[in-house]
Amino acid sequence: MRLSRYFLPILKENPKEAEIVSHRLMLRAGMIRQQAAGIYSFLPLGKRVLDKVCDIIREEQDRSGAVELLMPTIQSADLWRESGRYDAYGKEMLRIEDRHERELLFGPTNEEMVTDIFRSSVRSYKDLPLNLYHIQWKFRDEVRPRFGVMRSREFLMKDAYSFDLDFDAAQTAYHRMFVAYLRTFTRCGLKAIPMRADTGPIGGNLSHEFIILASTGESEVFCHRDFLDLGVPGEDVDFSDAGSLAEIVREWTMPYAATDEMHDTAAWDALPDAERMAARGIEVGHIFYFGTKYSEAMNAVVTGPDGKDTPVHMGSYGIGPSRLIAAIIEASHDEAGIVWPKSVAPFDVGLINMKPGDADCDAACETIYGELEKAGVEVLYDDQDTRAGAKFATMDLIGLPLQVIVGPRGAKAGEAEVKDRATGERETIPLASVVARVTA
Amino acid sequence: MRLSRYFLPILKENPKEAEIVSHRLMLRAGMIRQQAAGIYSFLPLGKRVLDKVCDIIREEQDRSGAVELLMPTIQSADLWRESGRYDAYGKEMLRIEDRHERELLFGPTNEEMVTDIFRSSVRSYKDLPLNLYHIQWKFRDEVRPRFGVMRSREFLMKDAYSFDLDFDAAQTAYHRMFVAYLRTFTRCGLKAIPMRADTGPIGGNLSHEFIILASTGESEVFCHRDFLDLGVPGEDVDFSDAGSLAEIVREWTMPYAATDEMHDTAAWDALPDAERMAARGIEVGHIFYFGTKYSEAMNAVVTGPDGKDTPVHMGSYGIGPSRLIAAIIEASHDEAGIVWPKSVAPFDVGLINMKPGDADCDAACETIYGELEKAGVEVLYDDQDTRAGAKFATMDLIGLPLQVIVGPRGAKAGEAEVKDRATGERETIPLASVVARVTA
Repeated sequence: MRLSRYFLPILKENPKEAEIVSHRLMLRAGMIRQQAAGIYSFLPLGKRVLDKVCDIIREEQDRSGAVELLMPTIQSADLWRESGRYDAYGKEMLRIEDRHERELLFGPTNEEMVTDIFRSSVRSYKDLPLNLYHIQWKFRDEVRPRFGVMRSREFLMKDAYSFDLDFDAAQTAYHRMFVAYLRTFTRCGLKAIPMRADTGPIGGNLSHEFIILASTGESEVFCHRDFLDLGVPGEDVDFSDAGSLAEIVREWTMPYAATDEMHDTAAWDALPDAERMAARGIEVGHIFYFGTKYSEAMNAVVTGPDGKDTPVHMGSYGIGPSRLIAAIIEASHDEAGIVWPKSVAPFDVGLINMKPGDADCDAACETIYGELEKAGVEVLYDDQDTRAGAKFATMDLIGLPLQVIVGPRGAKAGEAEVKDRATGERETIPLASVVARVTA
Repeated sequence: MRLSRYFLPILKENPKEAEIVSHRLMLRAGMIRQQAAGIYSFLPLGKRVLDKVCDIIREEQDRSGAVELLMPTIQSADLWRESGRYDAYGKEMLRIEDRHERELLFGPTNEEMVTDIFRSSVRSYKDLPLNLYHIQWKFRDEVRPRFGVMRSREFLMKDAYSFDLDFDAAQTAYHRMFVAYLRTFTRCGLKAIPMRADTGPIGGNLSHEFIILASTGESEVFCHRDFLDLGVPGEDVDFSDAGSLAEIVREWTMPYAATDEMHDTAAWDALPDAERMAARGIEVGHIFYFGTKYSEAMNAVVTGPDGKDTPVHMGSYGIGPSRLIAAIIEASHDEAGIVWPKSVAPFDVGLINMKPGDADCDAACETIYGELEKAGVEVLYDDQDTRAGAKFATMDLIGLPLQVIVGPRGAKAGEAEVKDRATGERETIPLASVVARVTA
């Protein structure tokens, strides 16, 4: 992509309204724009990151056996009356009346609708297990939306819903998602730690929040150092092997880990100092087994092997991709701007033409640009006639993993500079080696 | 994908509420489900087609130089007051009040918001031309939503907006979209004919609807037979060459073509009988130059080369992907069900195991399934223990381009049957040749 044909509205000043670093950097890097309180546009650079994050989430959901569909944003109030949540949900629900005075709402979540889809077509235990997910915009009318897309009113959510015949099968479904989440966050370049969450009236221990560690995180978390060395399952993990999934979950839930809310001071104090890690974190996912709460209320039953009808056991599993992007930035930035993990970077490489109009620079850049594109590398080519300082500042701000810098002297000498954004290391290499270096 | 792990709720009966064939077939094939009047879920099979259609649209928008962003679904009423459309829009607009009694709406279209984004960051003619598009859910509160996703209330729309310094540049922007649309619909397997549409107070001739020909189309259209032979530009079309774009548009707008609304009986009657083609059509896209209508009202100006501020010239360009799917089915189906064009088929191949549990059948199918997946072919593998008749009926109904049928006798003899869904032709070939045949 040539910068001259792109839409990248960089802000030079720090926006006053941004209280946290991810909000500030997303605004400054031209990734998002506020359209109303807690409602944002994803500008082209932000949209690209959103797509990358969603692709990773989708791949890992699919790998675990979940099936993607797409439910609408607008739901009928009647459906929520069946579960009793229409009145219970309170003011966070955006309630709407259509031209015929029918009561609608902008979905804050989809338990009711997915249960309705399930009960309309699934009859037998033979059709289980089933896990349906979608990635769709949700709306929660927060009193004080803030922190940009970290806590917005309209936000993207991946929500998956599992359906199983009994508790044991539901537990395995839960384990599948647990493992899929470990893989998802790792692929996004994050260190995520599952922490036990409140299960309320459901009870049991099948509710975990996934917290990523970030020095600027919103909340205090407490965990065992062992987490730093725990391995994340590879892509060959066998999602049909309930035993090995359970073992992975066991391993990842054994060391002490707690959010401030669930913190057990006595257990914490009992740990040797050297094993304790008090840190800051951001919640990026939540998985939850809630049994037959909705299936009983909404009569979603299947016929079991014994010929009897039984309400299905369900769980729900959420990740907020828009919020996740903010969390990635909180976890990976420096003074100069964002430092994208490769897997979610909006482009792989920034190619900087230091002097557009200079024949050597232009020729070298055009060649490199063409070859990189041909090699399938995503390049943002700064072909604009602006000051060197502004070019460098913009490239650092938007945080692409690699920069290729071509100046008139270097181009004449047949050389370019390659800069690693994360380490700041620079090296000068022959123009002819740039593609090999970048694709290495 | 194994059918046993998929979610494909086929309906055996014709749903009463479906008045047109695409609605009927989408319901029966388990592609969509109505959640409220005019509001649908895209079930897994429908979601796959939606993704394919959106990918084609996106590739052609990108190719033409348009840049993708993503605006939110919820908009502020104040923004629409600036253009005067908040009061003018009427009851089709879904109006919402949030918890703080601020007036919001579910966007039916995005001229105001994109103009707001433009004016907040673009200052100079040097940043033009610019075309910003997104693919996002819209809501129009139709009095009587019907025909499934052909005329739903919540619907997906690709809407692009062009910004140019003057009329000439805006006309070229219009031509770029015109050509992108020709390519888009052709790639979806459709014959689309651009027909002049009403320009209202704007005047001029820069408004076209793209109508696809379908025997069950909603409206009567009149066009010259020449359209059947007009070539659609290849992917090497040069979007930077204004002259050649204008020539393509000239060629595609010269023969007579009119919707019922714009029909000129005298001109039509003057055509020789043999050149006339009265047909039925479905509108699948609309492109429209509206000049400075919004930029003047909302003060979206750029500084021109002469140093003077001038309101930008704009156009908007819409395609409804959810509606487009219904149109494709109207144009391509038979008695037995849908006949997908290859480019938008939810899977490339249906693999039917006629007797799961039979060792030969299972072994042959597993091998073929594994090899096809490895070759990047998208396969729906019917591994379920159901009647032969039901298997064939389902595969024909969901309309995958090819079927590979493996029965116990054939498997033993080392053979499979390959059926072409569109022609109905069947051939028996060695199991070892199936992958080569399918990927040919």
